[in-house]
Amino acid sequence: MRRASFEDMHCSVARSLEVVGEWWTLLILRDVFFGITRFEELQRRLGIARNVLSARLDTLVAHGVLERRAYDEARERYDYVLTPKGRALWPVLVTLRQWGDEWITGEENAPVGLEHTPCGEHVTAVLHCSSCGEELRSGEIRAVPGPGHDADPSSPLLRERAER
Amino acid sequence: MRRASFEDMHCSVARSLEVVGEWWTLLILRDVFFGITRFEELQRRLGIARNVLSARLDTLVAHGVLERRAYDEARERYDYVLTPKGRALWPVLVTLRQWGDEWITGEENAPVGLEHTPCGEHVTAVLHCSSCGEELRSGEIRAVPGPGHDADPSSPLLRERAER
Repeated sequence: MRRASFEDMHCSVARSLEVVGEWWTLLILRDVFFGITRFEELQRRLGIARNVLSARLDTLVAHGVLERRAYDEARERYDYVLTPKGRALWPVLVTLRQWGDEWITGEENAPVGLEHTPCGEHVTAVLHCSSCGEELRSGEIRAVPGPGHDADPSSPLLRERAER
Repeated sequence: MRRASFEDMHCSVARSLEVVGEWWTLLILRDVFFGITRFEELQRRLGIARNVLSARLDTLVAHGVLERRAYDEARERYDYVLTPKGRALWPVLVTLRQWGDEWITGEENAPVGLEHTPCGEHVTAVLHCSSCGEELRSGEIRAVPGPGHDADPSSPLLRERAER
């Protein structure tokens, strides 16, 4: 049994997963970031069933993450290209890849690296604070109610405040 | 049809999704990060079927992302707590939440914010370069072959190099 939709959950993680929270979807996006834009090549690389790939691409287009650009109008063939909303997902893929490199494949086996073109180095992405600029560390951040928190009375954040 | 496993795909994104690439799994981890550690409460908050929650928790324990700590040995009741491998996923959840805030719920409706405790501000996480320290921008990074790239001759990175 699977919940039909997370649209009613007032949480940006849940709402994001509605769009990208599924194996194939993130792997399709990974390949589009790599410059693979055509159905046939995505299908061949991923070994995904054609109807599944077609459905996932439709969902990503419907959510404005990808857009179709015809390269052969007569045969209705398209390139799938990232929209600004799609390109904005790169930090999710980068942080997920880094976690896999560190904890699953091992960094010495990492198949892909990240080059920062202005400095020319192979780098990792480090999360910094938008306010003071210091590196964020897991023990020094905490979730707090955001501007829309009132809409979710079941939030553990509010309970935490109530218990203080 | 769904591919049975991504373990044979030589890609850290795919291998990571094997562990966490599924709606419920990331939502369970989100709640554990919030301090919800018990089966009954996770089940109530997520509205997830008990057998599905049980299977997902077993997977996360098997992969070393969560560990069980008995709080009532006689009744075999456990807290599920993050291991270091599990805690290391926080950048994925933070970047995914920020994408959802910006592109789906709207930042003015964001239910959860991030506080950086040393500076005391509500902040966002910004990805910086581990080498030069500058902010990473999507147009200034590119994927390059990593130490383990030889193992994947189908990689578009290698093809790109071959075509130069």
